[in-house]
Amino acid sequence: MSLGEFELIDRFFRDCGARRADVALGIGDDAALLDCPADRQLVAAIDTMVLGNHFLAHFPAESIGHRALAVNLSDLAAMGARPAWALLALTLTKADPAWLEGFARGFSALARKHNVALVGGDTTSGPLCISVQLLGHAPRPAKMLRSGGKPGDIVFVSGTPGDSTAGLAFELGKLVVNSPAGVTEDVAAYLRERFHFPTPRVELGQRLRDFASACIDVSDGLLGDAGKLAQASGCGVSLAWEQLPISSQLVAVAGETRGREMVLTGGEDYELCFSVPSESVERMRRELPVAEWGYTAIGVLGEAPGAVVTRGGTVMDFSHSGFDHFAG
Amino acid sequence: MSLGEFELIDRFFRDCGARRADVALGIGDDAALLDCPADRQLVAAIDTMVLGNHFLAHFPAESIGHRALAVNLSDLAAMGARPAWALLALTLTKADPAWLEGFARGFSALARKHNVALVGGDTTSGPLCISVQLLGHAPRPAKMLRSGGKPGDIVFVSGTPGDSTAGLAFELGKLVVNSPAGVTEDVAAYLRERFHFPTPRVELGQRLRDFASACIDVSDGLLGDAGKLAQASGCGVSLAWEQLPISSQLVAVAGETRGREMVLTGGEDYELCFSVPSESVERMRRELPVAEWGYTAIGVLGEAPGAVVTRGGTVMDFSHSGFDHFAG
Repeated sequence: MSLGEFELIDRFFRDCGARRADVALGIGDDAALLDCPADRQLVAAIDTMVLGNHFLAHFPAESIGHRALAVNLSDLAAMGARPAWALLALTLTKADPAWLEGFARGFSALARKHNVALVGGDTTSGPLCISVQLLGHAPRPAKMLRSGGKPGDIVFVSGTPGDSTAGLAFELGKLVVNSPAGVTEDVAAYLRERFHFPTPRVELGQRLRDFASACIDVSDGLLGDAGKLAQASGCGVSLAWEQLPISSQLVAVAGETRGREMVLTGGEDYELCFSVPSESVERMRRELPVAEWGYTAIGVLGEAPGAVVTRGGTVMDFSHSGFDHFAG
Repeated sequence: MSLGEFELIDRFFRDCGARRADVALGIGDDAALLDCPADRQLVAAIDTMVLGNHFLAHFPAESIGHRALAVNLSDLAAMGARPAWALLALTLTKADPAWLEGFARGFSALARKHNVALVGGDTTSGPLCISVQLLGHAPRPAKMLRSGGKPGDIVFVSGTPGDSTAGLAFELGKLVVNSPAGVTEDVAAYLRERFHFPTPRVELGQRLRDFASACIDVSDGLLGDAGKLAQASGCGVSLAWEQLPISSQLVAVAGETRGREMVLTGGEDYELCFSVPSESVERMRRELPVAEWGYTAIGVLGEAPGAVVTRGGTVMDFSHSGFDHFAG
């Protein structure tokens, strides 16, 4: 089947995502025209996913569509911004209708959940590569910059990092049901789901504007990303091994020790790591109940530079602290 | 040489493009924070360039950096918008400092010329692929939509389309100096330059807001793009063969007939094709002197659908009317 560029856009992307009244002109002209609220600041992020690097050919297209948007939603969440409009640059080796249908379904479902309109894009032929540009807005003044942390601020993380990496291990066949013994299909399915359909913390990010001094989204590993936040703030960070949140599913497949290592160094979690001045912690816990919002205190910012993990008061050794696309 | 992602950004992209006071937060956090003027509409476009499709490995990196931004500047020009902020998604097989230096130089020079700040991006490893997202703004109400043309409006094009395609033919070895006889190094160099460093008509686009009923940027071939404008306007378009602007250099390499075919069907011109109500043409010619702004009347919008070329009053046959990435 041959599918032209214009037919492709019409069929899969014309009705993708939410409808918004502030889209003066969407897909179909040279550029999109958008009405940014006058009293708010524009927030913009771009992220790319590449076959062989961020996903493999056999991964569900719906997951790829979901994740391509989720990584950007997570970036905006870390700025406390409200997402609004997306543009999609899609490079395809071939226009496979079944794949495109799945991709658009995954993208659209997540976009609608967060009221994001797909307002433009570009389709080209070449090795499979997806760049999503996400625009949103946030109140002035800017808050939650990575640089806003202060020594003494308490460091938190949302959710249970590491699950995504374990789910990927199942996808890659590095983990299988019943190995280690006792790993059930339910556990594997839960972890796979965390990898394929991560939950960007969009609402939490906006609520944290009232409390957090700094925030970063956890995409390259919690320890490394907490270190980036600390460095941007002119601080160091110390995380407490015993306090790290870990899912029962991750413990089931990796055990406590390897599991906590995965919490610290696994990638693609799309959780938020944020610092809160100690005097604001009580108020945050009251207004954002942990049971509802799912975050955990994991450490503290300090004067001394660097990112360390302590266990029983002793600093542990972590040589691998994150992911760098070009290291090597 | 191994070059980390963060070092790569620091070294080549931290100081790339213009500095703007309306960038509240640029490269280095999860997203950029930008101040869009309250009285203007946000304008957003994204375009991708892929190795093997839009450029070849031996093309100068500086040209690739220039073109990656130029295609987006051209999209914003077609909306009569003023460009402001760019985000760059760069997928690289390897981090080659010489290539990156050239790419950043080409990108930065054009960005500074148009006062565009590079405010964010993403670097990943994979097959070479470049997506640029460009943001700008334009006065309200929206003007120059593709859909604004009316039967009787005069159709214009800027510059001399076709040159870029001829320049590409030199790059691909399909044309060489002295074949056809008499083609000089000067002619070849001029055409190569038109391909490698096209001139997005950013100023012209903004000035045309006062005159044009509709506008499109010519990236897929003049005849096809004029047809898209006409179709979006619920019209047809008739272009006059004899009126098509053609450079002396293109005539020198292709002759009058093949040359005019290249004017109509060549790609990557990044000129503007626009329609102007006949009663506004005189005023436009007065306020935007042709000698200074370089545009040519090439046809007229009509009631009958379709895009045709007439020669001596007779409709010509053009089966190939543009470029479609997934056709065939």
